[in-house]
Amino acid sequence: MSSFLETRSSPPPGAGYFAHVGVAQLATDLRAGRVSPRDLVETALSEAARWQPVLNAFVTLDETGARAAADQAARELSDGVDRGPLHGIPVAVKDLIDVRGLPTTAGSRHFARHIAQQDADCVRRLRAAGAIVLGKTTTHEFAYGPTGDRSASGPTRNPHATDHMAGGSSSGSAAAVAAGIVPLALGTDTGGSVRIPAACCGVVGLKPTHNAVVADGVFPLSPSLDTVGPLARTAADCRLLWTAMTAGHQPPATAPRIGWIPPDSIHPTAPAITHLARDIAGDLVIGEVTVPEAKEFRAAYRIIQGSEAYAVHAERLATAPELYGEEVRDRLRAGGEVRGWEYVRARNLRDRVSGAVADLLHHHDLLALPTIPLPPPPLDSRQERIGGESVDVRVALLALTSPWSVLGLPAISVPAGLVDGLPVGLQLVGPPGAEHRLLAVAEHLQITNL
Amino acid sequence: MSSFLETRSSPPPGAGYFAHVGVAQLATDLRAGRVSPRDLVETALSEAARWQPVLNAFVTLDETGARAAADQAARELSDGVDRGPLHGIPVAVKDLIDVRGLPTTAGSRHFARHIAQQDADCVRRLRAAGAIVLGKTTTHEFAYGPTGDRSASGPTRNPHATDHMAGGSSSGSAAAVAAGIVPLALGTDTGGSVRIPAACCGVVGLKPTHNAVVADGVFPLSPSLDTVGPLARTAADCRLLWTAMTAGHQPPATAPRIGWIPPDSIHPTAPAITHLARDIAGDLVIGEVTVPEAKEFRAAYRIIQGSEAYAVHAERLATAPELYGEEVRDRLRAGGEVRGWEYVRARNLRDRVSGAVADLLHHHDLLALPTIPLPPPPLDSRQERIGGESVDVRVALLALTSPWSVLGLPAISVPAGLVDGLPVGLQLVGPPGAEHRLLAVAEHLQITNL
Repeated sequence: MSSFLETRSSPPPGAGYFAHVGVAQLATDLRAGRVSPRDLVETALSEAARWQPVLNAFVTLDETGARAAADQAARELSDGVDRGPLHGIPVAVKDLIDVRGLPTTAGSRHFARHIAQQDADCVRRLRAAGAIVLGKTTTHEFAYGPTGDRSASGPTRNPHATDHMAGGSSSGSAAAVAAGIVPLALGTDTGGSVRIPAACCGVVGLKPTHNAVVADGVFPLSPSLDTVGPLARTAADCRLLWTAMTAGHQPPATAPRIGWIPPDSIHPTAPAITHLARDIAGDLVIGEVTVPEAKEFRAAYRIIQGSEAYAVHAERLATAPELYGEEVRDRLRAGGEVRGWEYVRARNLRDRVSGAVADLLHHHDLLALPTIPLPPPPLDSRQERIGGESVDVRVALLALTSPWSVLGLPAISVPAGLVDGLPVGLQLVGPPGAEHRLLAVAEHLQITNL
Repeated sequence: MSSFLETRSSPPPGAGYFAHVGVAQLATDLRAGRVSPRDLVETALSEAARWQPVLNAFVTLDETGARAAADQAARELSDGVDRGPLHGIPVAVKDLIDVRGLPTTAGSRHFARHIAQQDADCVRRLRAAGAIVLGKTTTHEFAYGPTGDRSASGPTRNPHATDHMAGGSSSGSAAAVAAGIVPLALGTDTGGSVRIPAACCGVVGLKPTHNAVVADGVFPLSPSLDTVGPLARTAADCRLLWTAMTAGHQPPATAPRIGWIPPDSIHPTAPAITHLARDIAGDLVIGEVTVPEAKEFRAAYRIIQGSEAYAVHAERLATAPELYGEEVRDRLRAGGEVRGWEYVRARNLRDRVSGAVADLLHHHDLLALPTIPLPPPPLDSRQERIGGESVDVRVALLALTSPWSVLGLPAISVPAGLVDGLPVGLQLVGPPGAEHRLLAVAEHLQITNL
């Protein structure tokens, strides 16, 4: 099975330094004096510069701030102040999240000159853990899109195939990790915006339980669904980042019982993707399950998210519509046409499905399905074929991730290998608060399949 | 102050037997053998028949069922089975609430032939407490109106002045209690539908905390706001009914500190009403308070209720619009036009105001203001004057009650006297779960002012 071994672990061609070393190893090297925080920052900055013309993963690089933070981290370590495994490690932050003194553009021309006055709560936590903010990563305009190819600062490209999407909306964070520019990055996930680019770029991305991370300092898309989540090359690294963002606790040590959701029960899915994802889940799967009203439930996401996004943008759309990109403006306006009674029914449907899924999660520890039902499409593509069927790219990209967002459940995307050179993601879904369980199972699957 | 004494306690002219005796006295008389359950039922049936051409308080009288239940109650008492203070007491039930074997018309031609298969949960509880269901009372069509003058079975009239509204939507329950047909009745309150008719008819009406009473078997108007509440002539009687509906517990014995809300801060209010309500609250009031964004908040009710009501009625409106009354059909359709983002903002506003009011209720035990800002208008009136200003009758009737509905808080309307022969209500509002406190303070105010 050596071909599997290779395909599942292989970084994109030309991937940088951080695509080949784990955070735990870096932490050891830092403490042994084999590398310094400044070395890591300089490496990250030079990888960022090398990759920027290719990927457009970054909007802002904070060379000065990152170097100062590295020197500070080095002084602390030499003074015996050790902030833990992220001490001295560079991280990238999605440009929807405030970092004090840096612009937060949210991928929009509306915010071209907006400088954050404060760190977002999640950024404060990372700094307290010793992490070094290298810069801000490209986001789909206002985080309103799973494709990552519409932003005031241009599209992000997929490191595995630069004429393909990186996925969105946390496109730059996923691309930067996949390309080895940084080992860790923060994203946000409303309907799949961490998991989709993680799957597209072949990295790990965790969407936490709704409200598990305070969203202070994060520009909202749809507040009842918005979450902040970590991205990393491996589940082990992702766990270190997640633990720094929250008060971590250990998962149960028992082997998980996983229910497999045939993805075609939700949306047509490329058979090669279903096969690869199912294969990596392996014999942890104890049976197949389906979610009731799954197809109607996909519409509930569009209704809730569209209404909430318009509530965020109504005045801006009235006063300066020309500052939006055409596609996002049209989608926002469509969201504004959704009726209140449809929103009410979507929430009622959520309550019904939530009860049914809680029941599934009573009989299974986790649920599993592919993260996205098709390979990362070419940039700008809006229609693709899956099997014989023509599908809307945005609808397809969100189809398998958004249900768990509407239910507020944590979910993780783990690399499952490549199809035609493009990454495939396996998605695991758990009950509220199961982030560490998801990370542990993801780590187990990565280790046993590498 | 004898004129106050008289006006505050006087029942409408010609009021029946139950307008002159309390439930506790009836309970004593029943156990002493001075009256039988059958006597009470026959009295109630004959009062109902006498008043029906005048008030139209009832849609259905269950002579057979009530007589059988009375005989059963008598047998139990003579066998030593005592179900407590409601044992053998007739009650009326709003025709939005299922009583097994009787029609539930909801005031609509849609349900002209709908027979309930089960008792609603609240009705089951009353029967378990020994109460006897006399019949079903008129409701505004689908409970969608505070005027009580639009129903498939015709308008309810105010016992104090039969060319005036009884208020709505629990119009028949309030009129039946005020006229002394029954001592107790059940209503439902979404934005004021127990409190408004209680104020209009000069009786006590309690809207409980949202979700304090299970709504199984009650036709929905706006589920996130709907409640089931008791009506009675006195707060003491109301407490007995409330205790039978729920697991009762006693309020704190300390004197309450009440914050007075000047009603004009929410909606223009007739000065005589403000004066009378403020006067009855007396020296329990420790100061004046105002609710932030109060006027915007009134719109939040319309938005939430309109969206939720349309979600209940969408298919019915599409397939059989002709079975609605014109006014309710127009209002439902207007509710269907509300946008999802407006619903989202209304809920956001609710969250903000909820925090501010929780703060007020941290410094005060209860809040007080009039129940409605004008006397019960003439039947069919849709515009009235308050001071120099022309106001929409429905908006005015709901203005002072609906904010507490949106916040989910319990509130009670207590008779505060008469202005030009028409009743005035004082409204008390408490924190979640404060029903017994509200009832105790209402009882105190009634006793000290009678």
